Amino acid sequence: MSAKYIHPFSFGDRTQSDLLGGKGANLAEMVKIGLPVPPGFTITTLACREFLLTGEIPSLLPEELEAALINLEKELGKKFGDPKNPLLVSVRSGAKFSMPGMMETVLNVGMTPEVAEALAQQTGNPKFAWDCYRRFVDMYGRIVCEVPLSEFHKIQQRVLSAFGVNAISDLEVDGLQALTDGYIKETEALTGETFPTDPREHLTRSVQAVFHSWNSERAQLYRQRERIPSDLGTAVNVQSMIFGNLSDDSGTGVAFTRDPATGETGSYGDYLVRAQGEDVVAGIRNTMSLEDMAKEFPKVHGELEKVMANLETHYRDLCDIEFTVEKGKLWILQTRVGKRTAEAAFRIAVQLVDEGKITIDEALTRVGGAQLAQLMFPQFDLRGSVKELARGIPASPGAAVGAVVFDSKRALDASRDGKKVILVRRETSPDDLVGMVAAQGILTSRGGKTSHAAVVARGMGKTAVCGTESITVDESGGFFTVGGESVYEGEVISIDGSTGAVYLGELPVVASPVTSYLEGLLSSASDEASPVVKAVDRILTHADKIRRLEVRANADTPEDAIRARILGAEGVGLCRTEHMFLGPRRSYVERLVLAENEDVQRGVIGEMEVLQRADFVGIMMAMSGLPVTVRLLDPPLHEFLPPLAELTANMSRAEALNSEISARDSAVFAAVKRMHESNPMLGLRGVRLGILIPELYKMQVRALVHALIEVRKLGHDPKPEVMIPLVATQRELLYLRESLEDEISKTLKGTGQSATIPIGTMIETPRAAITAERLGVYADFFSFGTNDLTQLTWAFSRDDVESSFLPRYLDLELLPFNPFESLDQAGVGILVKTATDQARSIRPDFKIGVCGEHGGDPSSIHFFDKIGLDYVSCSPYRVPVARLESGRAVLQLDIVNSNLTLG
Amino acid sequence: MSAKYIHPFSFGDRTQSDLLGGKGANLAEMVKIGLPVPPGFTITTLACREFLLTGEIPSLLPEELEAALINLEKELGKKFGDPKNPLLVSVRSGAKFSMPGMMETVLNVGMTPEVAEALAQQTGNPKFAWDCYRRFVDMYGRIVCEVPLSEFHKIQQRVLSAFGVNAISDLEVDGLQALTDGYIKETEALTGETFPTDPREHLTRSVQAVFHSWNSERAQLYRQRERIPSDLGTAVNVQSMIFGNLSDDSGTGVAFTRDPATGETGSYGDYLVRAQGEDVVAGIRNTMSLEDMAKEFPKVHGELEKVMANLETHYRDLCDIEFTVEKGKLWILQTRVGKRTAEAAFRIAVQLVDEGKITIDEALTRVGGAQLAQLMFPQFDLRGSVKELARGIPASPGAAVGAVVFDSKRALDASRDGKKVILVRRETSPDDLVGMVAAQGILTSRGGKTSHAAVVARGMGKTAVCGTESITVDESGGFFTVGGESVYEGEVISIDGSTGAVYLGELPVVASPVTSYLEGLLSSASDEASPVVKAVDRILTHADKIRRLEVRANADTPEDAIRARILGAEGVGLCRTEHMFLGPRRSYVERLVLAENEDVQRGVIGEMEVLQRADFVGIMMAMSGLPVTVRLLDPPLHEFLPPLAELTANMSRAEALNSEISARDSAVFAAVKRMHESNPMLGLRGVRLGILIPELYKMQVRALVHALIEVRKLGHDPKPEVMIPLVATQRELLYLRESLEDEISKTLKGTGQSATIPIGTMIETPRAAITAERLGVYADFFSFGTNDLTQLTWAFSRDDVESSFLPRYLDLELLPFNPFESLDQAGVGILVKTATDQARSIRPDFKIGVCGEHGGDPSSIHFFDKIGLDYVSCSPYRVPVARLESGRAVLQLDIVNSNLTLG
Repeated sequence: MSAKYIHPFSFGDRTQSDLLGGKGANLAEMVKIGLPVPPGFTITTLACREFLLTGEIPSLLPEELEAALINLEKELGKKFGDPKNPLLVSVRSGAKFSMPGMMETVLNVGMTPEVAEALAQQTGNPKFAWDCYRRFVDMYGRIVCEVPLSEFHKIQQRVLSAFGVNAISDLEVDGLQALTDGYIKETEALTGETFPTDPREHLTRSVQAVFHSWNSERAQLYRQRERIPSDLGTAVNVQSMIFGNLSDDSGTGVAFTRDPATGETGSYGDYLVRAQGEDVVAGIRNTMSLEDMAKEFPKVHGELEKVMANLETHYRDLCDIEFTVEKGKLWILQTRVGKRTAEAAFRIAVQLVDEGKITIDEALTRVGGAQLAQLMFPQFDLRGSVKELARGIPASPGAAVGAVVFDSKRALDASRDGKKVILVRRETSPDDLVGMVAAQGILTSRGGKTSHAAVVARGMGKTAVCGTESITVDESGGFFTVGGESVYEGEVISIDGSTGAVYLGELPVVASPVTSYLEGLLSSASDEASPVVKAVDRILTHADKIRRLEVRANADTPEDAIRARILGAEGVGLCRTEHMFLGPRRSYVERLVLAENEDVQRGVIGEMEVLQRADFVGIMMAMSGLPVTVRLLDPPLHEFLPPLAELTANMSRAEALNSEISARDSAVFAAVKRMHESNPMLGLRGVRLGILIPELYKMQVRALVHALIEVRKLGHDPKPEVMIPLVATQRELLYLRESLEDEISKTLKGTGQSATIPIGTMIETPRAAITAERLGVYADFFSFGTNDLTQLTWAFSRDDVESSFLPRYLDLELLPFNPFESLDQAGVGILVKTATDQARSIRPDFKIGVCGEHGGDPSSIHFFDKIGLDYVSCSPYRVPVARLESGRAVLQLDIVNSNLTLG
Repeated sequence: MSAKYIHPFSFGDRTQSDLLGGKGANLAEMVKIGLPVPPGFTITTLACREFLLTGEIPSLLPEELEAALINLEKELGKKFGDPKNPLLVSVRSGAKFSMPGMMETVLNVGMTPEVAEALAQQTGNPKFAWDCYRRFVDMYGRIVCEVPLSEFHKIQQRVLSAFGVNAISDLEVDGLQALTDGYIKETEALTGETFPTDPREHLTRSVQAVFHSWNSERAQLYRQRERIPSDLGTAVNVQSMIFGNLSDDSGTGVAFTRDPATGETGSYGDYLVRAQGEDVVAGIRNTMSLEDMAKEFPKVHGELEKVMANLETHYRDLCDIEFTVEKGKLWILQTRVGKRTAEAAFRIAVQLVDEGKITIDEALTRVGGAQLAQLMFPQFDLRGSVKELARGIPASPGAAVGAVVFDSKRALDASRDGKKVILVRRETSPDDLVGMVAAQGILTSRGGKTSHAAVVARGMGKTAVCGTESITVDESGGFFTVGGESVYEGEVISIDGSTGAVYLGELPVVASPVTSYLEGLLSSASDEASPVVKAVDRILTHADKIRRLEVRANADTPEDAIRARILGAEGVGLCRTEHMFLGPRRSYVERLVLAENEDVQRGVIGEMEVLQRADFVGIMMAMSGLPVTVRLLDPPLHEFLPPLAELTANMSRAEALNSEISARDSAVFAAVKRMHESNPMLGLRGVRLGILIPELYKMQVRALVHALIEVRKLGHDPKPEVMIPLVATQRELLYLRESLEDEISKTLKGTGQSATIPIGTMIETPRAAITAERLGVYADFFSFGTNDLTQLTWAFSRDDVESSFLPRYLDLELLPFNPFESLDQAGVGILVKTATDQARSIRPDFKIGVCGEHGGDPSSIHFFDKIGLDYVSCSPYRVPVARLESGRAVLQLDIVNSNLTLG
């Protein structure tokens, strides 16, 4: 085989999707296992990539195409363009990663008026023959010659009414010819060229058109959403045509080997008699189910079932296929491992284990954390009468219900009145932030998963459906329309951020059974446990068995700790002590800052200690026997005080009105002004606070030691660890370590108790990462604060980034993903790995974890496993996801995401 | 020599100061070259370090000490503690780096009442003998037994008045005995122990006391100021005593081989007859000059001159010595390379070259950038009648004159009234910032070079003298006192931040002749050129000849560029274009931000282009033939707008008073609110601005290209380079590079001109540094922005750091120096080196420079040279310093600073 760009289907197998595209690789596989595949060949992605780079068809391609065509002619005993014995082919796109509907297909290439005439005579079915030609001209005109669909629609309407029929399938030969003629004239008018008649030119230009469609706007958008690299290119499959539209014992269909929606066993699909191509999915005529097909066409249905069983056994997974029947003979046009819902993914995986087709390890590779997360969200109860208005891009999961509002200010007003609203916008901008905060959910008609609305909503944990292109938003008119229907401001809708569905009216929201199970409210052995709960239970149990990474939770309160433990956390990896002084307890820090002398300050610190201790007791009780990592006070003190701008406004107003200003207000104002920093993220916080106000950290460890004693008295086993934030240099760590160890032993003295409390440090400044070897000397453990580390490595403020430039960056593909959602392995990851390697060079068993948001992100977890961290810590509800992905990580999957780096 | 802790002076040489301390190494050297050194031995720094670590004398030390003592007894034929033939020794500290007066010395160890009695008989000079004993008890009591000096003073006063004399030297034997007895009783009373009588115990405890004095508060403070590592420890020199107080042909003195103040040739020193130890420096009696000594004691003076000539030839540098004469015989007690002023350093270096003692390369190693910088500051004219009030620590150079003010608020008020003030405080705190900004200079009575006042003043470039301990500041009283004199608020003083001198009254300030020379206003060949100017000229010329680093300047205006070129800059390494839109041009950016539509925006950008172009023309004219690196707009736009707090105050006031708010004010307020970022340093700035508002950067390169054409028309040779700030990922760089290259060629089109304008990137985010290999593919050069890189690597905001925690960090030695003043080689330096290595792996000749403040810092320059950068760029006035240090860097000096890393 010396060909460079073209291989027949008998070459290769399904592992070669890089070269052959997914469709081509699977065709090769089917040929290999002896399934009835119409012969043909694949033009490789290599040819497409060259075309994309140079803008021209590779110079050797025409020659190879001719040779491949001649081989095909020989194999089938037909001739391309020969009216006597015509070879007709389909020209289909087929990229490595499925991009359904995003690229182009031209069927019936090889048809000419002469061929149609001859075919009519040979088959004795002129209507069939002219319909084939009509289909070719339709597709060629639109796809190759770029005639807008709307123009062909007009012609179609004109012809149908001229012939007095309702559908193309009702046209006879003269009607079909008139329609085809109309298409040709329109194409010639728009292109200014004669419609070509040479089938070889048709073929070449169709191939080019498919290449070209790789970079269509919708294909680019799709890839961006799905994180598919944009330089892969598509293969093109040229396959001999089978005519499902030839006779009444012909037809075409699609089928799944199991139900892709629920995972129910048994094949599932649709069949359409006397039809071709996309007629099934186009929904033009009513299809029949596979059950009905079994009744009407038992023989071919039997064959189909056999093929499907064969494919499932071979692929060891749910397959979907496209098949065509020509005069009672079954042909398989394509197959692939089928897409499925999250529920189906879990159910099918365990079914295949039970059927002996895959191991439980493999089952674990078939599901993912994102799917588990989806199953954990509350869901709409769709059992009643439900009206789905539209379906957009599921941009931020959740189920939100509220009255439609088209303006951020009004959304805020409504929410202040206690009303639940859904903010509906064409697209959002930073000016909409206030409305987004106020709303239950966000619905937009434009933009994808990287749009402003999507990025900000995910950052806020707010439900969002974006890019719902079927709706038209009239913001000034105060309504949106979809399919002719209008929804006005104030009407209630329900949006599902996990599926992208938009429903009219208020849908009841039900708790997820998977969550009930994970929260221990539902046993997987119970009769009420649905199949998906049982499937999740089996797979998660296996993940727990094989995973290497420990999974802890970020928990700041006893309630969080209890929930986390139930959800499977093996300790607290991050207890943020500042959260204990927010909300109603905010005043403590304010009083601390305003204390007029050291006695008063000591008094306030004493009061804080009591509160702190109670929190520690509750958390360590909940985590008895498991480690609880307490991070000492981290944020700048002014975060506990009123904002400067607000105070400035109050003071100016008071001054202007000559109102009296209380001494306390003046003091607060002075303190806030004094403590104001232009970049608090880079200011007096973390370890720096601990050094400037030594009493603060001492109070915290005292509270921790007292809590430890109390928890022991209650018969539990507390295992606290102390973590120092924002360390940048060894000396800080040594200084504080000595002071804290001293305080711990002083506090223990005379209590008759002893305790070894490990003292570790966050690694969250780049300097800490690159000098980890020195820090490690004085640290019992490291915990990566990947949020701060990302901020500092990129110079992106997490607080600002989403509302300012990040969406634009994502749109321009300057960032393929948000580095705060998924770890930037090529940048921040290098620092994480460097620090880990340095620490392990000190002690091979140096304990290292991560406690940023990335601890719950699937692809980041795989990275953390790979470089050998000991644990990840994430928010309690992410714990099951982290458990699952930690198990998957052990299996060293190559997940799509890891192909993408932030350049 | 199997001894571990002790070596006789006949062991080692001056290179062994690590082990022997500076004094011990020089004693060994002098013994080696045959100078008359009283025999003795050195207890090494190793012993001290062990003592400091364990708190105990090393177990082997007593044994070695005994052996060394016996050897010394044998050598001298005397016996320690033997009244018949007593060996007396001095016990002196001697660390690697000189710490004059910071540690302790005990003389006459070996004296007991019995020895004194015997010595009186042997010498026939009982007064001498009992004076020796008195001196020993005095020092032993204070230093070993820690009796406060004040207590001994009281006793001294009592005895002097009892004996009716004015000075100890007037006491006879009975008086001396009474005084000694008083010391002993006081010591016993305070320690509760009998005063020991065993000379061996005296010796051991004296050695311990010297070890101990390494960690005295003043020694720690001194090391911190001088950046001497705190773990080196001191050696102890035990030397047989020579008695300058024995007779009238005995005496003691100090001498320099040249004048250490001016560098004038010829020896220089003081001699005191019948004196011992520190009597000379203590200034108790009037000393005689060496000239007078030559007249009175020609023989011994002749020997002294010979020794000095010998030492200078041997050390090839200015030496200072301490000598003692006992009955006409000269002994050299210690020598070292002498400290000198900046002026003397330059003058002596060239003198030594002319005398054939050193090469011009070596001369370059004898001076430093800090000294050159000192010579460049304006100086006080001290020729008139001048009253020096006090001398503090020279904390921030410069010569400042103003009225004394003790309160920051009043300093501000006075400066608003156009008055010049010096802010005088015990110490400053962040609350004093406003006063420091308003003042000409700052004078404090406490704190050293790392105090708040010092750090902030240097950050502001403001003159400061700190830690002036001889003055007592009474802030509430509004005066300070010094030596009984009071200076009241409003009185004028003059402070010299280069020398630490504080003068009463207004001293005239004169321009530095060195600066006149460097600015081309004074030829070094001219008659008016002082010797120091000629010396600077010769050494700097040599540095220019040998240096590898190119030195550019940071210049934002044509004026800066002209000045920089005169001062020797070889191009502009950083032209900050934002500076062109500050001050009176601020409104442009405001109008840009407020533009209601794109037409208006385009209009404003057009106007900005005209201004930008004119600036570029001026700068490129000044730098004709040399590169001019233009950094595209960097700071967040809101820096050009009024601060949010101020606007909020105005708006609230207006609302409260129901005043009308103009549409413009509302618009500005809305824009500022919208653009407000919680951490602007990490926000929408740099390359991100360039991507979000593409017209901005395009305008800048258009202006640059038009300017280039204009400069060429004027017959000059413009060499612009474009630099993109804050890049974090390859994609940003590629995206902008394409857009800018496109704009450049569009602008050139039709002009008949061509130009290759290199496009490079700043490396200032940690991510850029660690992914430099990828950035390098699309960059023509790199320039390290070490300010931002330091901020991000440490998570220190430069704007806040000096006023918040940095001074405290420096005080606690958590940071040995400010990483914004001198590059943190162990942290930020690793990133700089990593990026450099990555870039050079792409192209061995990849052009790399640095344009942060560190580009003008001596130790940083040495680092940049070592890792192979191509150029440094610094502010114009730093250019001569950078030229000098770049030359020195080639000689690969090991400068003290490089011993210190930020842990």
